[in-house]
Amino acid sequence: MAKVGVILSGCGVFDGSEIHEAVCILLALDQRGAQVQCMASNKAAPVVNHLAKSPGLGERNVLEESARIARGEVIDLAKVKVADYDAFIFPGGFGAAKNLCTFATEGENCSVDPHVAKLLQEAHQAGKPIGLACIAPVIAAKVFGKTVRPTVTIGHDKGTAAKIEAMGAVHAAHDVDEIAIDKKNRIVTTPCYMEAQRISEIYVGADKLVEAVLAMVAHPASV
Amino acid sequence: MAKVGVILSGCGVFDGSEIHEAVCILLALDQRGAQVQCMASNKAAPVVNHLAKSPGLGERNVLEESARIARGEVIDLAKVKVADYDAFIFPGGFGAAKNLCTFATEGENCSVDPHVAKLLQEAHQAGKPIGLACIAPVIAAKVFGKTVRPTVTIGHDKGTAAKIEAMGAVHAAHDVDEIAIDKKNRIVTTPCYMEAQRISEIYVGADKLVEAVLAMVAHPASV
Repeated sequence: MAKVGVILSGCGVFDGSEIHEAVCILLALDQRGAQVQCMASNKAAPVVNHLAKSPGLGERNVLEESARIARGEVIDLAKVKVADYDAFIFPGGFGAAKNLCTFATEGENCSVDPHVAKLLQEAHQAGKPIGLACIAPVIAAKVFGKTVRPTVTIGHDKGTAAKIEAMGAVHAAHDVDEIAIDKKNRIVTTPCYMEAQRISEIYVGADKLVEAVLAMVAHPASV
Repeated sequence: MAKVGVILSGCGVFDGSEIHEAVCILLALDQRGAQVQCMASNKAAPVVNHLAKSPGLGERNVLEESARIARGEVIDLAKVKVADYDAFIFPGGFGAAKNLCTFATEGENCSVDPHVAKLLQEAHQAGKPIGLACIAPVIAAKVFGKTVRPTVTIGHDKGTAAKIEAMGAVHAAHDVDEIAIDKKNRIVTTPCYMEAQRISEIYVGADKLVEAVLAMVAHPASV
């Protein structure tokens, strides 16, 4: 049974993990027989009022808010041992671009949360597959763009695609029901709400991403 | 196309809507071609820290937090016109037993949020089907127990079942992958996380509930 780490970034599309994406990924992983461990950074992040779609009051702890999606079963990213997992998957949402890296405010000049960067580097070096949905592929573009130049997709948004290329990665345009598979780098990406209009489209992309990641787990790289 | 109101009670199993249940219901509705409107009460409720699984700091607004699950597209329950919808579905989570009614603290002596009670009464009088998951069936037991005595299920939990019967409703024990259909009262219920161990079990029950509710919409009652 594959053991997959799902990296959350809070709870809610505007300041955390996109909930539909996170849940559809968890659902697809469970339906396909994977064992899942949610993980998140133990740090504060500003609140967005999701009703007003405008800045909210104060900050919330990313790990505590991620626990809402994980029903309490989430661990601190700082304590994760990459060797304990077969693969890692990142749902999207603004949290991926604000809390896991600073892409939302700094674009191609962004920095990546040190725990996230370390996890990605170690996973890649060990040949473990990495899946990223929605805006999360920008994190892989930043971490790996200047070295292994991964191919990723965020759909068809030309502005974001240009920033991905500016970070050194290759962008491949894909529709919402498609995935981009970088076989060499063992990175799978899908547009989700970068393109989706409906939650059923999220499930289709999430399930294809999960299927491809688990297929890579079943066929280990010769590292 | 059926138009279905989904009544949320916040965002997170311990103080709001159970997120997996809410998302699986939204997913099943979309996959089956229904039009969805999320709705929630505009009131404050105490926070539970989902990481520590213990009381958190302060209160949050139920409508604003529900907007996280709904990606901002949620309306105030006080403004809902029952005539605009074909059916209503209630996901579970402690929010259903704390914010939509007081069952969590008062058991069979609970009271129901006035907007929720009004919606249920009007929907029932108009012959519109009502679906309730997990602990949410206790709300229907309270609202309808002394009049039409609906049959509902929350799974196999004997303590909760006894309280449902004390409110005047009939409890039918069911497994996680089953639904209870009260054809006369047009009420459909399923245990979800009252019984489930895994998110894939939630989807199975949620999808069966949605299927049964939409089948009732397609075959209107002779009111």
